[in-house]
Amino acid sequence: MLHELPTLAQLLRGLQQVPYLASKNLYRVADHFLHMDQTKIEQFCALLLEAKKKLKQCETCFCWQEQGRICMFCGSKRRDQTLVCVVESWQEVLAIEKTQGYPGVYHVLGGTISPLEGIGPEDLTIDALVARTETHAVKEIILATNQTPEGEATAAFIASKLKEKDVHVSCLARGLPVGSSLGSMDRLTVYKALADRRPF
Amino acid sequence: MLHELPTLAQLLRGLQQVPYLASKNLYRVADHFLHMDQTKIEQFCALLLEAKKKLKQCETCFCWQEQGRICMFCGSKRRDQTLVCVVESWQEVLAIEKTQGYPGVYHVLGGTISPLEGIGPEDLTIDALVARTETHAVKEIILATNQTPEGEATAAFIASKLKEKDVHVSCLARGLPVGSSLGSMDRLTVYKALADRRPF
Repeated sequence: MLHELPTLAQLLRGLQQVPYLASKNLYRVADHFLHMDQTKIEQFCALLLEAKKKLKQCETCFCWQEQGRICMFCGSKRRDQTLVCVVESWQEVLAIEKTQGYPGVYHVLGGTISPLEGIGPEDLTIDALVARTETHAVKEIILATNQTPEGEATAAFIASKLKEKDVHVSCLARGLPVGSSLGSMDRLTVYKALADRRPF
Repeated sequence: MLHELPTLAQLLRGLQQVPYLASKNLYRVADHFLHMDQTKIEQFCALLLEAKKKLKQCETCFCWQEQGRICMFCGSKRRDQTLVCVVESWQEVLAIEKTQGYPGVYHVLGGTISPLEGIGPEDLTIDALVARTETHAVKEIILATNQTPEGEATAAFIASKLKEKDVHVSCLARGLPVGSSLGSMDRLTVYKALADRRPF
C-alpha cells in the first residue's frame, strides 16, 4: 500500500531516524503530524530550526548553552571550577542540578565508548577533558557515567588517561538508595553497600 | 537549569506534544535534533510540511491519499465497493492490506468513542459511515475495531446505528491465533474458540 503513497512513505522514513520512536508508534506519530494544523506544524519546524541555531555546546564542558561561548556553569563565579563532574550527556547534568547540592562544574562526554556501535574515545570529549585538567586548574574529577558495561568501561578509560595528571579522581557512591529496604534490593547493591560501609 | 536556557525549554515543550515520546526520552530526542546537521533538520522540516500539504483524507473512507479526492481503494475498480471494513486508524488498514486477501474497501473512524478523553461519536466518522450505506450501495460492513473496551463499545454503537439500514454487519472471528497452542492461550480466547467452534 505504501508504495502508492510516496509522500507518506517518505514521512515515515524521516520519522524512522528519530531515536526512541518504536516502529510500532511511527504510524501514530505520522498520523499526529498529519492531523496537526498547518500553522502548528510550521511552529514546530520553526522551533526546531531556532533551537538548532541558538543552542551551541559550551567550549569547555560541552553542555548546551545559548548565551555566548561558555555555559552558565563554566562562566559562573559561584561554581567551584576546580571540581568537575564527568557525565555521559546533559540529561545527567539536569539530574545532578536537581539535587541543588552540587557546587562544581561539569564535563559532558557525549556518549560512552562502544566498539559495537563504532564509538571510540576519539568520538567523545575525553581529550578535551584531559586538556582541561592542564589548563583549568582542576583539583578533582568525579566520574559519574552510568553503571552500564559501556559506562563503566568509559570511566575506567578516563581514569587511566588521568593517572599521570595531578588530579584526584573519584566516582559516585554505590549503596542502598534512600528509602529502600534491604529485602527488595538486588544482590550486588547489597554487596557494594556492605563492602563500602561507613561509620555511623 | 532549564529556565536559563529558554530555547531549549521551548524545544522540549514542542517535543512534549509529540505522542508516544516518553518524557524520559524527550531529552535524548532533543539532543538528537541538536546534534543533527543544519541541512538535515531543514530536510526533516520540509518533509513534514510537504506531507502535510500533499496528504489528504479520502472523502469517502478517510484513508490518507495524495492523488485527488478519493483514495486508491475507493477509486479502484478491482475492489468490492459493497464490502466495507471499519477500522480505528489507517495502521489497521496497513495490517489488513498485508494479508493480501481482503477484496473490499475501508472506513477509517479516526479513533474510538472515549468519554474519558472527551471523544464522542460526533468526533469520529460514524455519521459519514451511516451516510455511506445510503449513497454507496454497501452490502456488508465488517466492524474491525480493536478488542479494547473503547473499541468494543464503538463497534456496538455503530452496530446500533446500522440496525435499521439494509446492510449486513459482521465482525472479525475470535479464536485461537494460527500456530498457537491451547495451553498458552488465555481463558477468554479458549472460551470464545469453543463457543464459536465450526465444522472441521
